[in-house]
Amino acid sequence: MNDETVLLGHGSGGTMMKRIIDEVFAATYGSEELAQGNDAAVLPAPAPGERLAFSTDTFVVTPHFFPGGNIGRLAVCGTVNDVATSGAHVKYLSVGMVLEEGFPMDDLRRICATIAETAREAGVHIVTGDTKVVNRGHGDGIYINTAGVGLIPEGRDLSGAYCKPGDAILVSGTLGDHGIAIMSQRENLSFTSPIESDAAPLNRLIADVLAAAPDTRCFRDPTRGGLASTLNELAEQSGVDMAIREDDVPVKDAVRGACEMLGYDVFQVANEGKMVCVVPAEQADAALAAMRSNTYGSDAAIIGQVEEAKPERGPKVFLETGFGSRRILDMLVGEQLPRIC
Amino acid sequence: MNDETVLLGHGSGGTMMKRIIDEVFAATYGSEELAQGNDAAVLPAPAPGERLAFSTDTFVVTPHFFPGGNIGRLAVCGTVNDVATSGAHVKYLSVGMVLEEGFPMDDLRRICATIAETAREAGVHIVTGDTKVVNRGHGDGIYINTAGVGLIPEGRDLSGAYCKPGDAILVSGTLGDHGIAIMSQRENLSFTSPIESDAAPLNRLIADVLAAAPDTRCFRDPTRGGLASTLNELAEQSGVDMAIREDDVPVKDAVRGACEMLGYDVFQVANEGKMVCVVPAEQADAALAAMRSNTYGSDAAIIGQVEEAKPERGPKVFLETGFGSRRILDMLVGEQLPRIC
Repeated sequence: MNDETVLLGHGSGGTMMKRIIDEVFAATYGSEELAQGNDAAVLPAPAPGERLAFSTDTFVVTPHFFPGGNIGRLAVCGTVNDVATSGAHVKYLSVGMVLEEGFPMDDLRRICATIAETAREAGVHIVTGDTKVVNRGHGDGIYINTAGVGLIPEGRDLSGAYCKPGDAILVSGTLGDHGIAIMSQRENLSFTSPIESDAAPLNRLIADVLAAAPDTRCFRDPTRGGLASTLNELAEQSGVDMAIREDDVPVKDAVRGACEMLGYDVFQVANEGKMVCVVPAEQADAALAAMRSNTYGSDAAIIGQVEEAKPERGPKVFLETGFGSRRILDMLVGEQLPRIC
Repeated sequence: MNDETVLLGHGSGGTMMKRIIDEVFAATYGSEELAQGNDAAVLPAPAPGERLAFSTDTFVVTPHFFPGGNIGRLAVCGTVNDVATSGAHVKYLSVGMVLEEGFPMDDLRRICATIAETAREAGVHIVTGDTKVVNRGHGDGIYINTAGVGLIPEGRDLSGAYCKPGDAILVSGTLGDHGIAIMSQRENLSFTSPIESDAAPLNRLIADVLAAAPDTRCFRDPTRGGLASTLNELAEQSGVDMAIREDDVPVKDAVRGACEMLGYDVFQVANEGKMVCVVPAEQADAALAAMRSNTYGSDAAIIGQVEEAKPERGPKVFLETGFGSRRILDMLVGEQLPRIC
């Protein structure tokens, strides 16, 4: 295809759209199902008893390319991770693109190549898609929506509503890397040690934890709103308190420094390659060992525990500081860092 | 919620996002699965042998409100219809919103109410979603992605690759209504008889046709690129020619007039509530009767037939004019009408 930029005709439903689909999308991340060219992908019957897991995420991050990845890697990882939290085998993705007229075709090809590579890494197939082109001056180059379908083996049942007092809270690695990587790229900040996004598909890490700690209560993806929002959501769903120890939460020195300099609370900064996991106390060491043996879990840690909520007030999340004091860790209020994913 | 417009904080992952989800999205189109609040919706196991159908569509239409519907109705119908073409029972939808800072909350509520109403009409559940907010000046108010999952009964097998010479080609109603409705709204044109979008969920119409004409080869949704692109795609997939009779294709007088005035080919204008259907000749009358007995199929017609392709050239689509001549009906080249859906 000779077009050097995206044109309105690439979203027309006609020959130009066929060309961008065949020569860019199918050529990079095509699958057998995508090649069939029907309005819907037809996928094999699940095994008897397998339930479905279904999730979606749209990606509007700027800049599109950043240390550690690009919008394409995010788009695959974000939905793979959301579907995987259910304990499902993540199988199928859709990709819906909103392209801006004039977006460089080379950038689109690079993003699509990354989508293909990340999908391969995660073991998922891109089976259906959609392409819209909006006029120049709208849409910021590229927005990508992905939706994902997974199959949950019979008997597996995870939910944020299952946390019980005494359970251990784990995180699969260092916090804040994605948010600070985007922020520093956007603001042209440089640090002595470069900060990279952690964007990564965690479906295999989750499978490893479930094999080692079969009574795991839940996984949750601490993206926007960070660890603070995630724990508050889980506490609310389960009607419990949670307490985490500040000193046990893994944070890279460079990220901690950047947060202090910029005035961000690292517990509220977005992650794109981390899992929060709640397991019964007696399976915590097994879950931790499983995480640490995975490529993306080498910095995993047990960071706290679930506690009984006090009946006179709603569920709360507490942060125990190094000085032994406890403060309430609230959900993010307002917006600290827009367009992070 | 007192916010009169969408704010960046509504996409933050924190308390403001929780508020817009609870008070706008869940309050209008919520389902039991959405209320569970996990990262992925968990859905019941399909019956043994049921395959999955999966499709996605993003909607960027301007204006957001138009005669006959709004972007919310389109977002539900577009994906429901794509999934339904596989012969699936359409079951579950995701909704991913990209909102622009400053978008009026009242407009968002109206759109969400329409999403709820259309999903109810189609009998589908909205089980998962995502919300992103982009800075003022980007995104044109609202873009909506939907993805849909359906279940295909054992033994059902439809594909655009199954058309055979002798098969009848049907369309479920008048062509061009959606494209011309958008165009006239956008350009402030007025016609003596108002032209309304045909946006409609056609999953029940498809089920009726399949009951009456069980050997139906395929359905296809003639949206962007119109009937011309749809038939060219089917001809290509099946390696056949197709011929349609211009006089038998239903077109409203007002739409025909508008097309002539504006220089559009009605066969290339987008539809959002029509189905193209190919059936064995002996089941054509039964399929037609089934369409006509459905609310959205009263103007259905048999418009042509599948023919043997000539080995010396690729598959072609022909239009037989009222004067008895035949011309080639090509796919849309370039873009005649951007942002139509």
